[in-house]
Amino acid sequence: MTRVSRRRLLGTGALTAAGAVVSAAAAPAAAARTAAAPAAPTAQTAAADVVIVGAGLSGLTAARDLIAAGRSVLVLEARERPGGRVYGMPLGDGTTSEGGAEFIGPTQDRIAALAKDMGVGTFPTYNTGKNVYYRNGQRSLYATDGLLGAVPPDWGVVDLEVALLKLGSMAKDIPVGQPWKAAKAEEWDAQTFYTWSRSNSLSSGARFLMDEFISSTLSVRSQDVSLLYVLNYIASAGNESNPGTVDRLIDTKGGGQESRFAGGSQEVPVRLAAKLGDVIHYNAPVRSIATDGGGVTVTADGLTVSAKRVVVAMSPAIAGRIDFSPGLPASRAQLMQRYPMGSICKFVAVYDTPFWRADGLTGQAVSDSGAIDATFDNSPPDGSRGIMMGFMNQANIRRLDGASADEVRAAGLASFANFYGDKAKSPVRTAFQRWDNEIWSGGGPVGIAPPGVLTGFGEALRAPCGPIHWAGTETSDYWTGYMDGAVRSGERVAKEVHAAL
Amino acid sequence: MTRVSRRRLLGTGALTAAGAVVSAAAAPAAAARTAAAPAAPTAQTAAADVVIVGAGLSGLTAARDLIAAGRSVLVLEARERPGGRVYGMPLGDGTTSEGGAEFIGPTQDRIAALAKDMGVGTFPTYNTGKNVYYRNGQRSLYATDGLLGAVPPDWGVVDLEVALLKLGSMAKDIPVGQPWKAAKAEEWDAQTFYTWSRSNSLSSGARFLMDEFISSTLSVRSQDVSLLYVLNYIASAGNESNPGTVDRLIDTKGGGQESRFAGGSQEVPVRLAAKLGDVIHYNAPVRSIATDGGGVTVTADGLTVSAKRVVVAMSPAIAGRIDFSPGLPASRAQLMQRYPMGSICKFVAVYDTPFWRADGLTGQAVSDSGAIDATFDNSPPDGSRGIMMGFMNQANIRRLDGASADEVRAAGLASFANFYGDKAKSPVRTAFQRWDNEIWSGGGPVGIAPPGVLTGFGEALRAPCGPIHWAGTETSDYWTGYMDGAVRSGERVAKEVHAAL
Repeated sequence: MTRVSRRRLLGTGALTAAGAVVSAAAAPAAAARTAAAPAAPTAQTAAADVVIVGAGLSGLTAARDLIAAGRSVLVLEARERPGGRVYGMPLGDGTTSEGGAEFIGPTQDRIAALAKDMGVGTFPTYNTGKNVYYRNGQRSLYATDGLLGAVPPDWGVVDLEVALLKLGSMAKDIPVGQPWKAAKAEEWDAQTFYTWSRSNSLSSGARFLMDEFISSTLSVRSQDVSLLYVLNYIASAGNESNPGTVDRLIDTKGGGQESRFAGGSQEVPVRLAAKLGDVIHYNAPVRSIATDGGGVTVTADGLTVSAKRVVVAMSPAIAGRIDFSPGLPASRAQLMQRYPMGSICKFVAVYDTPFWRADGLTGQAVSDSGAIDATFDNSPPDGSRGIMMGFMNQANIRRLDGASADEVRAAGLASFANFYGDKAKSPVRTAFQRWDNEIWSGGGPVGIAPPGVLTGFGEALRAPCGPIHWAGTETSDYWTGYMDGAVRSGERVAKEVHAAL
Repeated sequence: MTRVSRRRLLGTGALTAAGAVVSAAAAPAAAARTAAAPAAPTAQTAAADVVIVGAGLSGLTAARDLIAAGRSVLVLEARERPGGRVYGMPLGDGTTSEGGAEFIGPTQDRIAALAKDMGVGTFPTYNTGKNVYYRNGQRSLYATDGLLGAVPPDWGVVDLEVALLKLGSMAKDIPVGQPWKAAKAEEWDAQTFYTWSRSNSLSSGARFLMDEFISSTLSVRSQDVSLLYVLNYIASAGNESNPGTVDRLIDTKGGGQESRFAGGSQEVPVRLAAKLGDVIHYNAPVRSIATDGGGVTVTADGLTVSAKRVVVAMSPAIAGRIDFSPGLPASRAQLMQRYPMGSICKFVAVYDTPFWRADGLTGQAVSDSGAIDATFDNSPPDGSRGIMMGFMNQANIRRLDGASADEVRAAGLASFANFYGDKAKSPVRTAFQRWDNEIWSGGGPVGIAPPGVLTGFGEALRAPCGPIHWAGTETSDYWTGYMDGAVRSGERVAKEVHAAL
């Protein structure tokens, strides 16, 4: 059951959709705002029942459902593309590899339904063979199925399993999506996951693996995040019929990393955006949201929209950059100061073949050193070429703050060589996506809550502020942090807005 | 030594100064930007060696020093007034009472020197008599001098003193202003102050008072803040010759709350701003900072300034709302998501006389219930009328999110009546200042660091990003969170910028 290296990754997404009723009271030319120059006159205006900020999966889903309900919708997206944290990273040869959210697994029903509607198929994540365990400079292998695998890589794993069982048990007491209502919410939210993990383990092996559980799941250190947040994250790894479990959160087979999308996860938002069509306005970062007289005025670069309601389909941290007028209720305004994004870079190397497979390896590794602390086989389904993907998480990517592309590449390949041998040093090409440098995401995969935040401010995550509604994977009950949570949040907010109109 | 109720409050400040060389390549009329409408053409432009964002004490001090060094300076301030978190709150009768940072004490040399230069005198905070201890619905009194006072209000105080001694001892190992360099930094930053306080006390009395120490000092709950941050805060309560101590941090006599300013603390920034004159532009919130070709372009509502360097004299959380282009280094960008402001409201009631003095009370109270958890006598120096001031901190003010002014008033007076009797129910007038609702401060008194932030991102607090420099009390070594720290940060950044030009 040591499936710490069989892990999902990069949840979430926020895309842009299209295909709806827009009543554009258009004026002169659209203005391009540069950061250096004062905003040129913004001549273009539009009106809709609902304006949606962010064309990630949550915003696109909300648009889809509101349009289906007969509402006129307009989506404003800062980037030139839909998808938000779901992104097909160009490899430089005309193909892409997932640079952001990637996997799908059991109980992720809403992203599954959406993908099916979009005609995007799935295939199993490559998971045959043994995993690599790299610790204290030593490489060992372990089996990925059966109790602890055939050869436990570290006896701390026993200690770990006891701790994970405790976590799973505690998570059962979390009202999913409303962890602040748990009976022990105050106790659990008063400590970091680090504090809990040290009080509930003795071996350095277990402690390393618990830190790695947090790093590979949330891209932060275990001292950065509240125990309550982690318990809710576990509780959220399920659906209405199947309570969340640690295994389903971290596993490949049977868990959140079980499958991938044919053609890449970005196909889902890209096709949904294409269906929605010209209700989506790209290159339109929203700068201000004014509420007055029951309606809203949303001002983006080049376009101002009047609407009855607005859906902010963004992570709390990034939503906090918008100039709200009048100011939001304090609990919401201060929540947005307290829900930081993880620090993550996704690094891939392309090889002629997935050579690790011939060595009997899954392509999944876990490491305590180097720039990359977890890997996956990101090859196409037919294995016609090999793509190794590694996560540079938390302090590992911060150490590369300001590094050149060559430095990031060298660090990534050194990790791959530690795990998979010298062949890894000679890729055909490499690529990486630093989410910590993405202005419109501010990090990834998800916003996390330090201690005290969920109990002090959690209610403000979803509570509408007058005509302002909140979406995004952070607001989801199930699979928060994942694409499924993003879709769920879009479906929830569409109902909420429709009922309010 | 139970001086938990003898406490300072609301540190900091960021003001705007004036009186410098401005080369304004002026164009047509200044544009007023409303949140509801797209920005009108911003026709006014200007140039300076240095543009300073924020006219609080840090920005004003930086402007003063850079002008003295022969640099041309322009200050952009979002509000219509200087002072930032230093503010003379109108009482409605033509007078004011400190709505923000208020006190000055020993080793606060830099605010002392500035006040002297500005001709603003000081007087002792009223501190004669006993303090009120209100816990579990019971009111008791305790002496404010002598070991534990004549009658300890709670035997937990013994437990508390042991814990405070430990804290003071640990704080001696903090390299002030760079706590991430402490030998035990990782250990101390991995836990909340709550976790530490529960591991280092047994009595509910001590635990209440340690929570109250955090609430009254930082306006957050003890689970919200890293132990390392608190230790650095203690270490910072001193100067180069006198290492910081717990006593100096929390005491009235001999501590940070020892004295007040004649005419109110706001006189310091107001007079400095008046001296600086028209280099300060008010009502000019900065929206974007672009760096290109070695210089900066800073765009505020109605004014765009070209400069060689920019000083952002704001708290990290609020600085994070600015649109930086190109994006900042990830460590700085993510720091600004991780340094939230406390939740505070300052409430005052005005009476014909300071009637509590006749009852033998200092006007200082500490409470475990009600909206107000700490009070001070805010009367003028001659005692010609009585002004009682109370802090609504953390969860107490969040419970009043969205409350009407009448509701806040009723909650405040109920607390005052608990502490000082029925006379407190009949003030001549009341006033309050909610910093959690202040768009341009986002809370108060200071930005705090949850666990993991100082060790993970602390270096980014002060490190310049190309031509972008950082000031504000959060960046100070000594008296961070206080007016003194703000002045120190302004003096430090002025040297830094001058040397770089």
